[in-house]
Amino acid sequence: MDAAMGMAKIANGDLPDGLIDRLKAIVGAKGWVTDADALQPHVTEPRGLYVGRTPLLLKPSTTDEVSRILALCNSSRVGVVPQGGNTGLVGGGVPHADGGEIILSLARLDRIREVDPLNYTLTVEAGCILADVQAAADAAERLFPLSLGAEGSCRIGGNLSTNAGGTGVLRYGNVRELTLGLEVVLADGTVWDGLNRLRKDNTGYDLKHLFIGAEGTLGVITAAVLKLFPKPRDVATGLVAIRDLPAVIELLSRLRAASGDAVTGFEYIARIGIDFATAHVAGIVDPLAKRYAHYALVELSTPAPDGDLQNVLERLMAAAIEDGLVIDGVIAQNSAQAQALWRLREAVAESQKFEGGSIKHDVSVPVSRVADFIAAATAACTDAMAGIRPVPFGHVGDGNIHFNLSQPKDMDSDAFLAEWPRINRIVHDIVVGMGGSISAEHGIGQLKREELRRYAVPAKLDLMTRIKHALDANNIMNPGKVL
Amino acid sequence: MDAAMGMAKIANGDLPDGLIDRLKAIVGAKGWVTDADALQPHVTEPRGLYVGRTPLLLKPSTTDEVSRILALCNSSRVGVVPQGGNTGLVGGGVPHADGGEIILSLARLDRIREVDPLNYTLTVEAGCILADVQAAADAAERLFPLSLGAEGSCRIGGNLSTNAGGTGVLRYGNVRELTLGLEVVLADGTVWDGLNRLRKDNTGYDLKHLFIGAEGTLGVITAAVLKLFPKPRDVATGLVAIRDLPAVIELLSRLRAASGDAVTGFEYIARIGIDFATAHVAGIVDPLAKRYAHYALVELSTPAPDGDLQNVLERLMAAAIEDGLVIDGVIAQNSAQAQALWRLREAVAESQKFEGGSIKHDVSVPVSRVADFIAAATAACTDAMAGIRPVPFGHVGDGNIHFNLSQPKDMDSDAFLAEWPRINRIVHDIVVGMGGSISAEHGIGQLKREELRRYAVPAKLDLMTRIKHALDANNIMNPGKVL
Repeated sequence: MDAAMGMAKIANGDLPDGLIDRLKAIVGAKGWVTDADALQPHVTEPRGLYVGRTPLLLKPSTTDEVSRILALCNSSRVGVVPQGGNTGLVGGGVPHADGGEIILSLARLDRIREVDPLNYTLTVEAGCILADVQAAADAAERLFPLSLGAEGSCRIGGNLSTNAGGTGVLRYGNVRELTLGLEVVLADGTVWDGLNRLRKDNTGYDLKHLFIGAEGTLGVITAAVLKLFPKPRDVATGLVAIRDLPAVIELLSRLRAASGDAVTGFEYIARIGIDFATAHVAGIVDPLAKRYAHYALVELSTPAPDGDLQNVLERLMAAAIEDGLVIDGVIAQNSAQAQALWRLREAVAESQKFEGGSIKHDVSVPVSRVADFIAAATAACTDAMAGIRPVPFGHVGDGNIHFNLSQPKDMDSDAFLAEWPRINRIVHDIVVGMGGSISAEHGIGQLKREELRRYAVPAKLDLMTRIKHALDANNIMNPGKVL
Repeated sequence: MDAAMGMAKIANGDLPDGLIDRLKAIVGAKGWVTDADALQPHVTEPRGLYVGRTPLLLKPSTTDEVSRILALCNSSRVGVVPQGGNTGLVGGGVPHADGGEIILSLARLDRIREVDPLNYTLTVEAGCILADVQAAADAAERLFPLSLGAEGSCRIGGNLSTNAGGTGVLRYGNVRELTLGLEVVLADGTVWDGLNRLRKDNTGYDLKHLFIGAEGTLGVITAAVLKLFPKPRDVATGLVAIRDLPAVIELLSRLRAASGDAVTGFEYIARIGIDFATAHVAGIVDPLAKRYAHYALVELSTPAPDGDLQNVLERLMAAAIEDGLVIDGVIAQNSAQAQALWRLREAVAESQKFEGGSIKHDVSVPVSRVADFIAAATAACTDAMAGIRPVPFGHVGDGNIHFNLSQPKDMDSDAFLAEWPRINRIVHDIVVGMGGSISAEHGIGQLKREELRRYAVPAKLDLMTRIKHALDANNIMNPGKVL
């Protein structure tokens, strides 16, 4: 949206004389990029919503280099934008368009520092790609449960800075709950070694939670101690058609209790999502013969090798059909079938772009209000624009719905997208009225900064501002993001 | 230890003229105590380590009253000591001896505001007794898993302010992990309504974690939204004798994986603990015929009614015996037998006072270092004092060991207790050398303030100080605790 501003001025002029050379000297020849073409992917938000500008990207390879960079930028009053895989969806990882900030890429800080299977922990540097973190855990016969679409390119430091969620939150929590310790470089270059490997530690304020989810505005996370779990040995996956929205939530509650809290996935899909996915993504088929309004992808898993989950899921589904909650369904008979069901779920997200413009909402409400929310938001949006097509889907087990809206079939795409703020307001008012969140997992960045000002209680904004000032008095850490 | 100072001076003189009357007027006739005898239990730390002094205890019954009290104390620069059930063990909940602080009791803020079984949440006020919170969850067919010795008298606000642990941490986490939202009154009287009922919310800094575990130094927690879980329907409990310390940890790791992560209790007890418990506590018997060096109390539980856990535990134990990890053991055949095993565990803690002086350590190390720690600390303490008797026990599943030391049999109790600082130093040096914590679950309060200064990295103390100043510039919130 700010893309036009990206052309406004030449950037170099905004940095103090000689600073770029001094910063280059800290990281050495392999550690910097100034070429405009090479910088382009680093200044562009993945959906193209923001295109920024910078004269310099630094790629330090040690925590000490990060420390020296921040100390120098702090004394020079130059803004620093930390960047991982640049897969965020709210413009938090790209610089502003005035060219006065540098990018600090964590990509070369990518070592696995320690694996401790007996302590169920992994110590990693911020630049590790999420899939590599998962693989390191797997090699030690353990599970690191964070899983999301971008896992092949996003980096754990970005996951931590945005408190990433994904599909495993219901059972394992957000990345915040998966973190025992952090190493952070503060705005003035001080290194806080908080690489705690402990389950229990009550020695003063728990500082790690300040930096997790702060989107790089309070310091740079350089390493983390992550929690591991026993590796699942038995998994059962199914896709079921469900009577109505209240039954979706009722089914989830029953499954949690009856399975011994083994529900590790519970993803809602409305019929239109199945239609989009089967129409536009190669190889995706609807596994059920008839059409229904509401579906859930259900996954149970347990580390016990003899969990007998296939039978457990079949038995639970038979009972739910008898009680009228579930109408139809399939249970995967092997891992290939299970993967096909998950591909269907991922295809729901991918396929929307083939249906024209899409106005997106990453929101959450209490789990007990999910059905009310989808009904109310659908009604309000349909009232506001004839022909608009709601595509609700997502992690309803956590109350998190991706409430996306595809344009009316015959509308101009740009005209539709121009309605983004109006439709946002309608949906966010309903969300906040139900005690919900206008950003369940993607964060604030640039995209939702004004929305945060509108909806957050003043005491929260005031506390955030006081903390920001206490930790980054010169406002060099990712300025203009979040706050 | 500071008890003598309690007699130093008359307190009233330290408060500004007329302040007490203005504070009394906020809470009304039922809301204050000034009688010295009635105040006595509120100024005395439960083990008698600290006896403070105050002219006034206030018992507000609404959040608004708390707000008005803090606004007035802040403008008058008068220290406020928040107090729940006064069951803490580090002197964090009692005033200093100079009489210049008031106590703010949360005892009358004790309503259950909401139970939402479908959302698996409970909204409670800070003064609710923990056992009442558990009961409210149970009545809704849910589990609130926080469980600890003082649950009949401690209050949830105190549990939150000290990030309480207890026996369920291994499976469910500390109270920090059990909290979705908070209502907090800040030092200047501002009320922050952060009573979030959401599983996922990435709208800015996660402020609740600042107040949880801050021991009342950053504000007063007045209400909280707590996470609930499916209620266990199947429980299996056993006491096993284990080959050696490394085998204790190996057994835990195996049990977690093989039981489907159903280990909800895993408590280590050294032989001397069984000897103390059976010698001094009525009705406690050793369920095994022979004597062994190391024991663990193991509990598996699951919400699935047909979990078959009794058989699972028997099978796992048979395999562990075959592999030489476990030497002997019993599995409870009914809930009365299970309760007897838990009483034995509780009696280990109670019985130490009958063996003379006891120097206590509430420490944690990475789970993979527990065996090393107990061996090293035992050797060092025995070297430092002939005849000293280590009584290690506790939640080793979280790396949390209560490493207590009973006095040599023939020693004077006071002479032994005079060695508290020297022995602390020996044990804490070993703990910190292993990346451990000198306060795993009890907090800092007054007791460990100097130890925190000694062992915490300077960057952490500096960050804590900056945050304290940003949130409580006049230092009225529980002054002189933690920092």
